[in-house]
Amino acid sequence: MAVSDRTIGFDADDTLWDNEGIFERTHEQYRALLARYHDAETVDQTLFATEMRNLELFGYGVKGFTLSAIETAIELTGGQISAHEIRQLLELGRDMLAHPVVLLDGVTEILPRLAAQHRLVLITKGDLRDQERKVRKSGLAGHFQHIEIVSEKDAGAYQRLFLRQSISPERFLMVGNSLKSDIVPVLELGGAGVHIPFHITWAAEHAAQPVGYPGRLFTLQSVRDLPAVIEQWAGSRS
Amino acid sequence: MAVSDRTIGFDADDTLWDNEGIFERTHEQYRALLARYHDAETVDQTLFATEMRNLELFGYGVKGFTLSAIETAIELTGGQISAHEIRQLLELGRDMLAHPVVLLDGVTEILPRLAAQHRLVLITKGDLRDQERKVRKSGLAGHFQHIEIVSEKDAGAYQRLFLRQSISPERFLMVGNSLKSDIVPVLELGGAGVHIPFHITWAAEHAAQPVGYPGRLFTLQSVRDLPAVIEQWAGSRS
Repeated sequence: MAVSDRTIGFDADDTLWDNEGIFERTHEQYRALLARYHDAETVDQTLFATEMRNLELFGYGVKGFTLSAIETAIELTGGQISAHEIRQLLELGRDMLAHPVVLLDGVTEILPRLAAQHRLVLITKGDLRDQERKVRKSGLAGHFQHIEIVSEKDAGAYQRLFLRQSISPERFLMVGNSLKSDIVPVLELGGAGVHIPFHITWAAEHAAQPVGYPGRLFTLQSVRDLPAVIEQWAGSRS
Repeated sequence: MAVSDRTIGFDADDTLWDNEGIFERTHEQYRALLARYHDAETVDQTLFATEMRNLELFGYGVKGFTLSAIETAIELTGGQISAHEIRQLLELGRDMLAHPVVLLDGVTEILPRLAAQHRLVLITKGDLRDQERKVRKSGLAGHFQHIEIVSEKDAGAYQRLFLRQSISPERFLMVGNSLKSDIVPVLELGGAGVHIPFHITWAAEHAAQPVGYPGRLFTLQSVRDLPAVIEQWAGSRS
């Protein structure tokens, strides 16, 4: 169906559908559960420190988050947390996994338009089964010629994708909400990036705004502005 | 490096390295932790029931197992389990993830011999990061032309692999310890299977012995017997 020789990569969480909003609501319930022990800031900071400590072992995703949340709750309560409260934490994790996929504004209109012109691929990180479930629930899978779930979105992961899918980096543009995972590694490999910030960014995804990539780095407010930017990018280099 | 047009697929856990042995030792510690509440059989059965109930949501792997073990412990103790004991369960999970990879007998000798003749691919299921870590720790990655980590090893997963890797099923042979995940779906798709039972099989992997696949189904005691069987299989149909 693609008529151009360009490949457009899409991130999934917080680019096509809401994810951080679900985490944020879970954090609120987590803070409430621990409110009689600690203030919200201490809870947030300690949980984040646990997550970062466990990241290498657990990877990204809800299951690792839930394990880190239980570990942190035991630590922050000096072992006083009850089994009943830990069961509530298990339920929070389960609710996140079972949560409906809520597409972001414009996605259902824009994706088919882009898919008619270019090869679209989806690259997302997290728990394998959870990401597969979200892709399925999203109803968007049919727009993508390739879907890749990776454990880390770094330059190596994009290089392997380019190799396996015969993508030349200068004809690849990545769309995502995370500068660190979606934009910086692709720019470094010679590709282009469209950064569409989500209203919440997980602290682990923070990165400095890249500079010095004229014609290859774009920042948009909405996926609705994508076709114009992609037309400009594709036209300038074809 | 391959000189034949055959592809040999390998399962990883309990085919190339020990996995159920690690789970079995964890189960022993789990039973000991709950011994003052319930007998071993009740603990085992309840944990397995929790795992099966959670499988669709959690998928395979250590993180989901740990969450199910915590849930089961709360249930089996009527909420009497202490935060200290739940922390021990978190540690059991962490120990499993950090466990060294212990290759099974013959693997280091046999894989290079097979890789010199055929295209080898690795197909394993479980947590993405954990499986990647085990592949890395195993030192075996270099023998495989393709490594695939999937959330379920059913006929659909093998079909997608065949399509993406341009494998024709009748020139594909899968080696694994699980009839359900490694052998039956491949036989059904027209491929061949070598079943090498491991001394422990997780109850969720039990399946009836397939019948009626002459020349395509082999059962071996050890990976050391693979070259002879593969030579026979490849020779009979080339």
